[in-house]
Amino acid sequence: MDAAEFRRRGKEMVDFVADYQENIEHRRVYPDVEPGYLRSMIPSEAPLEPESYEDVLRDVDRVIMPGVTHWLSPHFYAYYANSTSFPSILADLLSSGIGTIGFTWAANPACSELETVMLDWLGKMLQLPEDFLSETQGQGGGVIQGTASEATLMALLSARLKTVKCVQESDPQRSEADIISKLIAYTSEEAHSSVEKASIIGGVVIRMVPTDEHFSVRAETLEKMVAEDKATGYIPFFFCATLGTTPCCAFDKIDELGPICNAENIWMHIDAAYAGCAFICPEFRPLLNGVEFADSFSINPNKFLLVGFDCSAMWVKKSADLTRAFQMDPEYLKHEHQGSGLVKDYMHWGIPMARRFRSLKLWFVFRMYGLRGLQAFIRKHVELAKTFENLVRGDNNFEICAEVVMGLVCFRLKGSDELNKALLKQITRTGKIHLVPCTLRGRFVLRFVVCGRTTELRHIQEAWKHITELSSKLLQNLFDHEGKEN
Amino acid sequence: MDAAEFRRRGKEMVDFVADYQENIEHRRVYPDVEPGYLRSMIPSEAPLEPESYEDVLRDVDRVIMPGVTHWLSPHFYAYYANSTSFPSILADLLSSGIGTIGFTWAANPACSELETVMLDWLGKMLQLPEDFLSETQGQGGGVIQGTASEATLMALLSARLKTVKCVQESDPQRSEADIISKLIAYTSEEAHSSVEKASIIGGVVIRMVPTDEHFSVRAETLEKMVAEDKATGYIPFFFCATLGTTPCCAFDKIDELGPICNAENIWMHIDAAYAGCAFICPEFRPLLNGVEFADSFSINPNKFLLVGFDCSAMWVKKSADLTRAFQMDPEYLKHEHQGSGLVKDYMHWGIPMARRFRSLKLWFVFRMYGLRGLQAFIRKHVELAKTFENLVRGDNNFEICAEVVMGLVCFRLKGSDELNKALLKQITRTGKIHLVPCTLRGRFVLRFVVCGRTTELRHIQEAWKHITELSSKLLQNLFDHEGKEN
Ligand SMILES: Cc1ncc(COP(=O)(O)O)c(C=O)c1O
Ligand SMILES: Cc1ncc(COP(=O)(O)O)c(C=O)c1O
Repeated sequence: MDAAEFRRRGKEMVDFVADYQENIEHRRVYPDVEPGYLRSMIPSEAPLEPESYEDVLRDVDRVIMPGVTHWLSPHFYAYYANSTSFPSILADLLSSGIGTIGFTWAANPACSELETVMLDWLGKMLQLPEDFLSETQGQGGGVIQGTASEATLMALLSARLKTVKCVQESDPQRSEADIISKLIAYTSEEAHSSVEKASIIGGVVIRMVPTDEHFSVRAETLEKMVAEDKATGYIPFFFCATLGTTPCCAFDKIDELGPICNAENIWMHIDAAYAGCAFICPEFRPLLNGVEFADSFSINPNKFLLVGFDCSAMWVKKSADLTRAFQMDPEYLKHEHQGSGLVKDYMHWGIPMARRFRSLKLWFVFRMYGLRGLQAFIRKHVELAKTFENLVRGDNNFEICAEVVMGLVCFRLKGSDELNKALLKQITRTGKIHLVPCTLRGRFVLRFVVCGRTTELRHIQEAWKHITELSSKLLQNLFDHEGKEN
Repeated sequence: MDAAEFRRRGKEMVDFVADYQENIEHRRVYPDVEPGYLRSMIPSEAPLEPESYEDVLRDVDRVIMPGVTHWLSPHFYAYYANSTSFPSILADLLSSGIGTIGFTWAANPACSELETVMLDWLGKMLQLPEDFLSETQGQGGGVIQGTASEATLMALLSARLKTVKCVQESDPQRSEADIISKLIAYTSEEAHSSVEKASIIGGVVIRMVPTDEHFSVRAETLEKMVAEDKATGYIPFFFCATLGTTPCCAFDKIDELGPICNAENIWMHIDAAYAGCAFICPEFRPLLNGVEFADSFSINPNKFLLVGFDCSAMWVKKSADLTRAFQMDPEYLKHEHQGSGLVKDYMHWGIPMARRFRSLKLWFVFRMYGLRGLQAFIRKHVELAKTFENLVRGDNNFEICAEVVMGLVCFRLKGSDELNKALLKQITRTGKIHLVPCTLRGRFVLRFVVCGRTTELRHIQEAWKHITELSSKLLQNLFDHEGKEN
């Protein structure tokens, strides 16, 4: 395929994507395929000779589309969103099209520098303390990680090294392995599974901190656990706070937790993957009060800021904590400005070496929407969630299971877990809308997250109507069944 | 931006990319910018109100392009390539455009299943033993990692857990921390820096194995090191072999190393990031003999198979070794086919949770080129490298520093490191071609890698002419200078 053919095929693909998004409502949001459906639909080996592009595109419709979960559908209410938008897709096309890779500054100066400035832009939108910005020429700064999981892992690993060094300063005989074996990390029992995964990778023990009645970690609880662990010879070193937990969008009280972490030399990382995006709205910003105590902080613009996956923004107060942990220096990666303090070699800030030009997505989206446009988008989603909450509250068969702060509503049928599981099964089987469950205080709960960029009031109303129709049938069956049994 | 505007802007962007690639030759391949050039060219804050798309696109030309290292230029001979192609860019646009995210099978069945089958296709193109394929319904299978660094890290972490479990089976009292503190990983002194980084993340000691005169790790050397370490109470657990080292594309002798690793219960991972792609050609495949002894193996289609970054293909013989290490199981990620053995939840195979639909890139490229087309591409690059090698050999001022097997030529001016550093500095400053150095046996060496999809004989000839012109001037200056001194 030469450039001339690419012009033609590329334009067709743009139309394909536009058509897809314009008509996505009419697709079954959750696919109706069985495990292994795909293998039998395509050959078992790559072709020897080139095939025609028409055949490939036909197979996208025939083979791929029937098996896709349509994340961009207004009927998609599962997980947290892939919050993409057309400007983000254009920026991504530009990134693929110019094919430049950033790891050191020299590998692509524009990539390194735009990333630095975009993280400053976003940091200011969030009113982060100056210590987290690069422009102040202090020790802090931002970086794009692929996922929140990687941000958490980097924070934990940096904290691990920092603590080892610190302990060894006062006790040079003590081995790294011995210190690591005594380290304790903490996170909420409601935290995302990636925090526990990070602790396993880091080879350290993690303790799940119980939450209060609002599913928030409180100072007192953490303080007590830390004291107990210290008393038995352990070394508390890392606390991952969550702002906007995955199950029910709860908020740890970072303004009370931060001072404890600071006093105890515990690295505080804040994982605000979803909810953190909303802090660009003044009405939500107070939830971030206490960030000044944090060592690192991250949000996923790809979850709630109209930026397509993958894009997780992370800020640290002392970037050296991150970089010195993993700085390798082979000849083929050296360049003349390295170590000058003037440039950022982002490969030392994360797990992977090579990196896509992802800051373009932020730049395009920030400029095409403006801060006001992004705020309006967030407010609309929160508004729609409140509407759904009110619908639920208006129906005596249902209950709301956690405070609705942003775009997530946790609800359930009053009744057994089995009943709610049966309802979700019906919803999934029918495939009109898609949502996933969570567990809150041991109970099975349905999560309804406003995800789609194009979700409107009518979708919310339709979704509720659909849910109540399915639940009515279920309740009727149950009633009939119980009637028969009596 | 609505779908209608996206249609227009998307088509413009397709033309932008096509124009870029058609005219890339005329750009300065390595940018002429100073550290910090970008910050002053754009505002220090995001705009409040939306800007016009024209302004954004104008700024791509004004702000971004002057600072880009043009990886797709035929004048780019640095690192190893981002080996992208138009079909790959189209597939990536499709992936961004449909915005679906894969982590479990249910999050996107098509994404999970196409990945499995594409890794089988590629595995067969490489003639991998059946143990590595999924279609045989054995314990093995393939996965796409973002980068080779992540593949190596996953292998090391899996080996760590496997060894801990294994030691604890015979000695249940021994703590995980104590075992980990005794673990030893091995890799070539010529291995990529990501292997050492993986060992730091994993918190284990790594030993660099000396190489023979061909820069290859040999059985005898590893065997001796392992024996010594065992004798002093250490536990050898991981060996990362390299096929196609970064400095000079050398090949560890995996057919002799594999049996040792197997006998000693050492996990053998093979990092063939660049060179592994060439094993789809029968004439190169013998270099992979011995892969049957490996536990895991990875290549980067984004380095030499016309697939755009990011795409690293990894195969393991026992996928449970990978997945059981990191399997988390929160309610919101459960689905009905989980654990059935019929589906793959790839989130457990890697570090990040969420994942782009990257197998589309493989599918598009394999079908649009066919195996023969891909082989022809590789052979052409190897041919061009041989041409360059002959040009170097024909000039008495220069020497070849390592055997030229694939697309990389290591060469230098006969003379001091300073002289060669001066030459590279001239090359970089002039910005007509771009290459990076390496160190071989302590000597400073220039690496010339045929990278561009559109690199032709004339580019190689021009590059050589340019290098010799610069070096003649340097040598002349040196001569004049020495003349004056005498
Ligand atoms: C609070 C929180 N943290 C982390 C994650 C994981 O995000 P990622 O896929 O970017 O690792 C999620 C995903 O929903 C989340 O809600
Ligand atoms: C042999 C080898 N391994 C690993 C890598 C790192 O690749 P990645 O950026 O995919 O981590 C490279 C990069 O050139 C390499 O040559």
